[in-house]
Amino acid sequence: GAPMGPDLKKKNIPQPSNPLKSFNWAKLAENKLEGTVWTDVDDINVFKILDLEDIEKTFSAYQRQQDFLTLNNKKESEDDTVTSKKVKELSVIDGRRAQNCNILLSRLKLTNEEIKRAILTMDEHEDLPKDMLEQLLKFIPEKSDVDLLEEHKHELDRMAKADRFLYEMSRINHYQPRLQSLYFKKKFAERIVEVKPKVEALIRASKEVLQSRNLKQLLEVVLAFGNYMNKGQRGNAYGFKVSSLNKIADTKSSIDKNITLLHYLITILEQKYPKVAVFQEELQSVPEAAKVNMTELEKDINNLRSGLKSVETELEFQRGLPQVSGDKFVSVVSQFITVASFSFSDVEDSLTEAKELFLKAVQHFGEDATRMQPDEFFGIFDQFLQAFGEAKQENENMRRRKEEEERRARMEAQLKEQRDKERKSRKAKENCEEDGEFDD
Amino acid sequence: GAPMGPDLKKKNIPQPSNPLKSFNWAKLAENKLEGTVWTDVDDINVFKILDLEDIEKTFSAYQRQQDFLTLNNKKESEDDTVTSKKVKELSVIDGRRAQNCNILLSRLKLTNEEIKRAILTMDEHEDLPKDMLEQLLKFIPEKSDVDLLEEHKHELDRMAKADRFLYEMSRINHYQPRLQSLYFKKKFAERIVEVKPKVEALIRASKEVLQSRNLKQLLEVVLAFGNYMNKGQRGNAYGFKVSSLNKIADTKSSIDKNITLLHYLITILEQKYPKVAVFQEELQSVPEAAKVNMTELEKDINNLRSGLKSVETELEFQRGLPQVSGDKFVSVVSQFITVASFSFSDVEDSLTEAKELFLKAVQHFGEDATRMQPDEFFGIFDQFLQAFGEAKQENENMRRRKEEEERRARMEAQLKEQRDKERKSRKAKENCEEDGEFDD
Repeated sequence: GAPMGPDLKKKNIPQPSNPLKSFNWAKLAENKLEGTVWTDVDDINVFKILDLEDIEKTFSAYQRQQDFLTLNNKKESEDDTVTSKKVKELSVIDGRRAQNCNILLSRLKLTNEEIKRAILTMDEHEDLPKDMLEQLLKFIPEKSDVDLLEEHKHELDRMAKADRFLYEMSRINHYQPRLQSLYFKKKFAERIVEVKPKVEALIRASKEVLQSRNLKQLLEVVLAFGNYMNKGQRGNAYGFKVSSLNKIADTKSSIDKNITLLHYLITILEQKYPKVAVFQEELQSVPEAAKVNMTELEKDINNLRSGLKSVETELEFQRGLPQVSGDKFVSVVSQFITVASFSFSDVEDSLTEAKELFLKAVQHFGEDATRMQPDEFFGIFDQFLQAFGEAKQENENMRRRKEEEERRARMEAQLKEQRDKERKSRKAKENCEEDGEFDD
Repeated sequence: GAPMGPDLKKKNIPQPSNPLKSFNWAKLAENKLEGTVWTDVDDINVFKILDLEDIEKTFSAYQRQQDFLTLNNKKESEDDTVTSKKVKELSVIDGRRAQNCNILLSRLKLTNEEIKRAILTMDEHEDLPKDMLEQLLKFIPEKSDVDLLEEHKHELDRMAKADRFLYEMSRINHYQPRLQSLYFKKKFAERIVEVKPKVEALIRASKEVLQSRNLKQLLEVVLAFGNYMNKGQRGNAYGFKVSSLNKIADTKSSIDKNITLLHYLITILEQKYPKVAVFQEELQSVPEAAKVNMTELEKDINNLRSGLKSVETELEFQRGLPQVSGDKFVSVVSQFITVASFSFSDVEDSLTEAKELFLKAVQHFGEDATRMQPDEFFGIFDQFLQAFGEAKQENENMRRRKEEEERRARMEAQLKEQRDKERKSRKAKENCEEDGEFDD
């Protein structure tokens, strides 16, 4: 406990004769009392006024067995003598936690003994699914639980299900680190599979933007357009920020407001630089890299590192203990650590490579590497790739529509010509017939 | 412009014969080019390949007058000669911006001359509503706009509406700071009214929690409960964190799971400490203070301060200029500054007081003042006040229900007694009659 301050007298708190439910407060540290309202508060005054017996009755840690009560509710409600004889259970943990713990245990469908065995053998029979382990981690017996449960261990058979579970688990040596190690081991492969493709996408995308010749040629063409169009301060540029790529479509043609500079640029590329018009083929990993948040990625990798470290620490501890039959922690975990360390180093090396390449890529485009994160940097290219693709399609549609219109116009012209011809020939014939008539 | 690097040769960029629409890129500073892709990019190559005449035609800053085109579209579509004669307007600002500016101008329903006069007189006739001013601030002519517009001022009557507006505004001396000062002046009162009640709520709520005797008494009672119920490390407390107040309802009675420690506490308070049971009367400002985010409040106040400062700076500048008739900036703004400074100091003083009191309040309860913000601190009390009120109501409902049940039970008992009596008397009568028969 905290050291007693000089003015703090030991309190004479009345003790209930049976354990009570606890009030889950946060005590104020004794060195923080000075100058607070608490120096002027004395609960001893209150004890004289409270009906302690009533509190003890109302908040007893022993409670009626709820299941029993509910199941037999109707039958017994008439019979007062049976109700008063009802079995009472000892439950010292707080109600909601006990209830949630019961739900978990009923879903697990294992006895305390079976759970214990599964944990000691590092779940060799695959009895504990990942999600259940995650739940079990929420019901680690706390120090205060253990103290209370220890006090009442002679009443083990009167304990409620959740209390008994916590008590049994509290007796497994290093229960919490064992459970955490088991959970870490089960989740490891899937966490590596989540992280690795992200790192690899960064590596590939960085190489792509660094090496793409068509991207470079595209920048050159865009630079020419900008320098030709812009005057004054905005003109005469030697380079532009990559984000400017996504401003190209903001400039609209003065002939047709549906045509933007991007549509126009694509048409020019298709005519004069056909390879550049398909520059996206050289940037295939960019969309995936645009989704990578470096802060989260590093957090994930740091969590893996510290998780692995914790398991190793626990392995060292368990190695120091005398061997117990049925306890497979050391053998299973030492094998796991060998494999896991190898695949983690692999991810770590890739991350280092990805960071170096990304830095190069950002600097290659004259951007500020301290501020630009992968999702922003590749996001700019990704957005441009998408806009480029859409504008290309729109160009295609416009071209097709125009061709159709032209074809229709040609056909209409032909039709008109045809009709004119027919009309003329009819007229000529009529004239001829009229003449003939007159002739007749 | 940026200083030329040693290797940068002045480029020979071809010049269009008429101004073009601009491409709104962000130039890369010339001192950032080294080591980037841009040292390897030369747009001069591209100019040899591009069809510059076509670009000039497609992206001319002179564009067909859209309104005219739209209005007369159908009539003319047959007549090619009229279309080619259509009036062309000069528009150098980018299309979307011009369009939004047009929308604003059509909503304002003022001529450029009227807008100009309103700004110079600090809107003495209230022609510019706040929301319109906010919009006007989005259409401040930029340096690049002004340069382009200046170049073409001899063609003023051919300029598009938005371009002409920007040009006229660009000729008002210090247009932007004038507009900002006007907007600040118009918004000032409402911003003070937004901020002040928040500061005052903090002051009142801090005083309330510092001074409330009933709150202190409540803490004493809760401390007694906790110390009676909790054992071991959790017990024997001299104080608890205020957040523990919201854990009281987590402890449930072992007799009736619908009754929590909070319900029980309220019943005890009503019996033994009736004044404490209405402790919320002493904490009336707490709910309002719980809504105050100190970071946002300080930001609002800092914005007011720097806004006021900017207006003062502009006033000093304008004072130094020769007086121009019709320009009322100096007279209107100096009067405004006098009044506004006074009411701003008042808010500032209140904020200082609020911070001091809040610090005292937090320390009074032994909490960490560097971490606890008003919304969290008062939020804890507010949440407790609400839970307290609800539990009190639930107690009331339970009591009423119980009373009704008892009344019904009493009445049923009476009824039963009555029926028994009647049955007995009937039986007695029957027996009597039977006896009589036998007797007869």
